[in-house]
Amino acid sequence: MATMDDIARSLGISKGTVSKALSGAKDVSQATRKLVLEKAVELGYQRIARSDEAPRIAIFITNMEYKKPSDFGYDLVTGFRKAAEPAGFRVEIVPITKEFQAATPYDQYMVRRNYRGALCLGISLLDPWLKDFETCRTPTVLYDNRVSGNPNVTYLAVDNDEGMALAVRRLKELGHRRIGYLSSALEAYVYRQRYQAFLRSMQDSGLPADETVCGASFHVSDCLSTHLPRLLKAGCTAIVCSHDLLAHSVIVHCTELGLSIPGDISVIGFDDIPLCRYTDPPLTTIRQDRTDLGKSAFFALSSHLNHVALSTFLLHPQLVNRASCGAPPEKAAK
Amino acid sequence: MATMDDIARSLGISKGTVSKALSGAKDVSQATRKLVLEKAVELGYQRIARSDEAPRIAIFITNMEYKKPSDFGYDLVTGFRKAAEPAGFRVEIVPITKEFQAATPYDQYMVRRNYRGALCLGISLLDPWLKDFETCRTPTVLYDNRVSGNPNVTYLAVDNDEGMALAVRRLKELGHRRIGYLSSALEAYVYRQRYQAFLRSMQDSGLPADETVCGASFHVSDCLSTHLPRLLKAGCTAIVCSHDLLAHSVIVHCTELGLSIPGDISVIGFDDIPLCRYTDPPLTTIRQDRTDLGKSAFFALSSHLNHVALSTFLLHPQLVNRASCGAPPEKAAK
Repeated sequence: MATMDDIARSLGISKGTVSKALSGAKDVSQATRKLVLEKAVELGYQRIARSDEAPRIAIFITNMEYKKPSDFGYDLVTGFRKAAEPAGFRVEIVPITKEFQAATPYDQYMVRRNYRGALCLGISLLDPWLKDFETCRTPTVLYDNRVSGNPNVTYLAVDNDEGMALAVRRLKELGHRRIGYLSSALEAYVYRQRYQAFLRSMQDSGLPADETVCGASFHVSDCLSTHLPRLLKAGCTAIVCSHDLLAHSVIVHCTELGLSIPGDISVIGFDDIPLCRYTDPPLTTIRQDRTDLGKSAFFALSSHLNHVALSTFLLHPQLVNRASCGAPPEKAAK
Repeated sequence: MATMDDIARSLGISKGTVSKALSGAKDVSQATRKLVLEKAVELGYQRIARSDEAPRIAIFITNMEYKKPSDFGYDLVTGFRKAAEPAGFRVEIVPITKEFQAATPYDQYMVRRNYRGALCLGISLLDPWLKDFETCRTPTVLYDNRVSGNPNVTYLAVDNDEGMALAVRRLKELGHRRIGYLSSALEAYVYRQRYQAFLRSMQDSGLPADETVCGASFHVSDCLSTHLPRLLKAGCTAIVCSHDLLAHSVIVHCTELGLSIPGDISVIGFDDIPLCRYTDPPLTTIRQDRTDLGKSAFFALSSHLNHVALSTFLLHPQLVNRASCGAPPEKAAK
């Protein structure tokens, strides 16, 4: 592991300057600080912690709510802290914007703030740091995002293939043949995954699936006004949704159209957010246990810190049967 | 958790008979024992351990050598024991044949022997227990085998996609365009995975890949006598092999044919078994760290025992550059 002396020698400057640059002192020029940080990352420098100092881990959050128990990210953060804090780590939650990412090289930030590793929640394919993760040297766990080929990065998620298979199998058992799919925008890795998984599950189940019964839009309103009528017209008797909030909107919209759920149309979600119990009717969905995912994220990170390079870490999903799925209308009428 | 009383009540027999059947006493008929074991599995019975008794875990081994440090399974077993035994588990190594599996339902065996969970090494697509794993209730980690949809089963492996991408990228960097692939029989899940991963990696790298430059056979001799000449004739300047032993055979065979490695043809293996350092020339390969995999297997199992259902657990592979890969002949001649 490189020391401040190594950085100083390598740049031909004094150790004092290196120390000041790393600690963010004001009397070092921006250019020198940049040089020092770049060299620190290149050499794999890590500040030696004082013996009374807990090693620090960051949870970076973007595009995700996490403060209230009903927020998607709450259990992830809580599960992570439940595992990390008893193990002696100090966990800091750092909301980040795209602008911040674009202005701040990831590894340099990690060295400057002395973070040993990070869990990243809510990163989309449009976030600038996604590029940094391809080559970063800091142990990093990406929830719902995959970066292939960097031994320092782990992909953590629920098994989306299995989840979609559970959803499709359930609807097939109930007698559905024409099953549609609605999704949020495919700029998120997880939604791409689920979309592909849906098509594969339909194929594996011997059911017809092509783009005529699928629709994806960034705005929920587009899903409801453009895609949903198309799917209904195509004879779909059930709709699988990429996530629960969308499924909830589909239920509300169908009800407004005078359709009964599940009498006329079955709806199934994905994630099992707290809301699912309170929709009308309560939403059948695929559960990902976010507390377990949070705990697993810490395990993956501590694995890296112990030099075991984890690539992929997937949890089993569960089908949660509530009241939004039933037999298709023809079948029910028999 | 069900007790012996529950089993007795459910079958309408005495608790004494249940106890005898579960302990394997001789004065219980084969038919009764079978009934009791089936019911025990169905109800989720687990014998309560005495306080001085370490919980037991089995490592089932088939189609794999593991006794000597040079054997493929040795580090897997050792890594697992290094993690499990300090945690208070008793690890038993149980070699199993296909005949044994066919005659012994998996869950019943686990109840009878009072195993809390198992790691399975070397299972092929032809092993009878693979069917049992689809529905088993005992926490089970399958190395190099995937069973989808059972929350009690974890798939543990190295990231084969990433491994093949590393191999193909390395050869492309060296200047190869025509790259061939040789594989052991595709009855093993891992070889199917790697074969698909090779084709995907070639595609992603913009290199031509189809079945004309690929060959798979159960017998190494078939690979050498049938497929290798075909690949050489097709102009391949490099061969990626599904595993190191096959790569070693390719090196020996090519040398016998008067070809120089890597002057005329580059060869790359997969696994990094101890032999790779001693082939002539030493074999460039994709490393899977089997000690880390063994440790990870125990983590996955203890995760299940703590009711966190792990679906997939992949480790990052590493490219190990030795001397069996170089520039293609045209390029070298320039």
